[in-house]
Amino acid sequence: MINENFLLLPSSYLFSEVARRRREFERANPHADIIRMDIGDVTLPVFPVVCDAMHAAVDDMACKEGFHGYAPEQGYEFLRDAIAAYDYQQRGIAIDSDEIFVSDGAKSDLGNLGDIFSSHAVVALADPGYPVYSDSNVMDGRGGDCLPHGRFSHFIYLDSCSDNGFTVPLPDSRPDIIILCSPCNPTGTAMTRSEAATWVNYANANECVIIFDSAYESYVRSKDVVRSIYEIEGAHRCAIEVRSFSKSAGFTGIRCGYTVVPKELMCRDRIGNRYQLHQLWMRRQSTRFNGVGYIVQRAAASLYTPEGQRSIREATDLYLRNATVIRESLGQAGFITYGGTDSPYVWATLHGEKQDSWRLFDSILDKYRISTTPGCGFGRNGEGYVRFTGFNTEELTLRAMERINY
Amino acid sequence: MINENFLLLPSSYLFSEVARRRREFERANPHADIIRMDIGDVTLPVFPVVCDAMHAAVDDMACKEGFHGYAPEQGYEFLRDAIAAYDYQQRGIAIDSDEIFVSDGAKSDLGNLGDIFSSHAVVALADPGYPVYSDSNVMDGRGGDCLPHGRFSHFIYLDSCSDNGFTVPLPDSRPDIIILCSPCNPTGTAMTRSEAATWVNYANANECVIIFDSAYESYVRSKDVVRSIYEIEGAHRCAIEVRSFSKSAGFTGIRCGYTVVPKELMCRDRIGNRYQLHQLWMRRQSTRFNGVGYIVQRAAASLYTPEGQRSIREATDLYLRNATVIRESLGQAGFITYGGTDSPYVWATLHGEKQDSWRLFDSILDKYRISTTPGCGFGRNGEGYVRFTGFNTEELTLRAMERINY
Repeated sequence: MINENFLLLPSSYLFSEVARRRREFERANPHADIIRMDIGDVTLPVFPVVCDAMHAAVDDMACKEGFHGYAPEQGYEFLRDAIAAYDYQQRGIAIDSDEIFVSDGAKSDLGNLGDIFSSHAVVALADPGYPVYSDSNVMDGRGGDCLPHGRFSHFIYLDSCSDNGFTVPLPDSRPDIIILCSPCNPTGTAMTRSEAATWVNYANANECVIIFDSAYESYVRSKDVVRSIYEIEGAHRCAIEVRSFSKSAGFTGIRCGYTVVPKELMCRDRIGNRYQLHQLWMRRQSTRFNGVGYIVQRAAASLYTPEGQRSIREATDLYLRNATVIRESLGQAGFITYGGTDSPYVWATLHGEKQDSWRLFDSILDKYRISTTPGCGFGRNGEGYVRFTGFNTEELTLRAMERINY
Repeated sequence: MINENFLLLPSSYLFSEVARRRREFERANPHADIIRMDIGDVTLPVFPVVCDAMHAAVDDMACKEGFHGYAPEQGYEFLRDAIAAYDYQQRGIAIDSDEIFVSDGAKSDLGNLGDIFSSHAVVALADPGYPVYSDSNVMDGRGGDCLPHGRFSHFIYLDSCSDNGFTVPLPDSRPDIIILCSPCNPTGTAMTRSEAATWVNYANANECVIIFDSAYESYVRSKDVVRSIYEIEGAHRCAIEVRSFSKSAGFTGIRCGYTVVPKELMCRDRIGNRYQLHQLWMRRQSTRFNGVGYIVQRAAASLYTPEGQRSIREATDLYLRNATVIRESLGQAGFITYGGTDSPYVWATLHGEKQDSWRLFDSILDKYRISTTPGCGFGRNGEGYVRFTGFNTEELTLRAMERINY
């Protein structure tokens, strides 16, 4: 007997469909020279400091004394200590290395976190949002019935749209779980400290758990924008934070991220008893996961050195400059845009919600040979928009924008 | 609201408890010089051919031309093609590279495969067996009520015991899913071709799905023992096969395995419509997983070279020699043993089921300073037994056995 919740999902994942349409266009137009600004994959090579660390780790594995077999399920202490120190304690945030779970990436954790919650839990999620939030909760049975525009009856949708500048409003009724992403994929908007405080206060008052996806925190430059939810008083009692080295350090092809589950964070069963989510996630990870490889963890640890931190800054600065170029060029060409500061993503529309976003996708591909991601793939409120990414090279980003402003 | 199924589980995973008791003994006996034969972790360093491949892959990642970002969700073609050719086609088995899903290891796949089946599916599993089978299905809600000896009311237990020589009998009533492991962890027994054919015929006649864990297939030396379930006619219509590079090539700290889901394999929903499990697993993996890193996949691919295959053979030969030494020494010391041929594991008892297996564990630790794994951790029928592993070095294996036969 299959899990019938799978039948409720669109048959292919969004980015697979984008790739299919791009390839189809390429076949029809073999000399088109398409510039890719669709999937959020990085283009810079892996930093020298990371490559050096990986070479050294391979040499360790080659000899009896340096060989490392199964890693501790939560990750090596050398990496968890560095994360706790650099990403939290040095920024004045109390997170202990015991509260950090190293993983093969944010996408896995965001999907798998559903395992520790009831299939009856009510999930609130922003529309538009990263499709993994919706898809994986539908798989777990939290979607209910399928509605038009790919919506589900049991979810609470937090409508983010041009009317509220693509910020995320509080829900009308109480959810059990709230999934937030800042800086946001796909809109590129980022949450200020006071907005984040509103969420934390709401979650604590209503006993909700926030899953805070901060995969793009390394792009934050504005002083009033949060990088971690734990900058906010009280967040340790209500929030899980999911992070990734993919977008900060170009680890999309190396696979490493981490999730913070504070020990203070409690959640109830049906009859009201409270349990540590930390303990449940530990049980999940030690049963259905076997840790991250030694070489990969050494690669991640090398980022917590002065050179590693400098490399992250340089890479994210470059992608942010690209985003600025995209945002400004699209503006000159008559697009309305969001994001592109504190984020590598620019969210753009020509005619607002009235236009079909696959049509906008097609016309940009056809006219400018630039592939984007259609906004409707992120939810109903994405209709009429497309997402541009700043992850291409500087040269190709400039060339693409010249095509638009020719 | 938490997933209350977690509350039904023993609070810590078996091997964490073994480690805790070993450390406690070490604290009380600081000069004890314990020899570890407990966890199934390898001890040989990573093969030179694999390290060379990883160094080259790191160099690829360091430059613009060789950089690899997100990997294809199913794995790179270069690896899937090699697996299909070497592990299947060259052995006369029709498996296409499209039917292979590369992952970060068998433990993840064995746990996550539950996602594509109904939470009402009835699971049959051998007792004793690898605890991940039971624990992860309990998490998914397939356990029902908790019974004595860590059993669950909704599972069908396949009683493997001294009466049947620790082979696995057919179930009395029809399950939806049958989990089989050969060569078996923990008993070391291995399934003959005719036994496997009995299972495939049963599964096809009763529309069951077999999940065949063949993580230890590289230890098979007997001609009549199956290495792949697909050696059996009809298995493509009923079986998923899960494999790992951990025990064959010492990848416990590198993290790579793969799962085969044949396209012919169909499974029903409640009203009887049939669906390709291949498509469901593809959807699961593309939504809740982001592929295996490039360097790791290059490492795995290097095993499909003459030198890689020779290295696997040498390593498994060594561990098999250790298993033989353990089996013979224990026999001389009055133990009754199973396994240890076609398997790195030796399953042993002194006084049969009448003895408590934690007591046997303690007495072996106390008398010989050898840590093992208590059989009861693998199920009720493991009571009275302990598992020895052949994964230690030749030298320490011999020293341990001298202590027993002093």
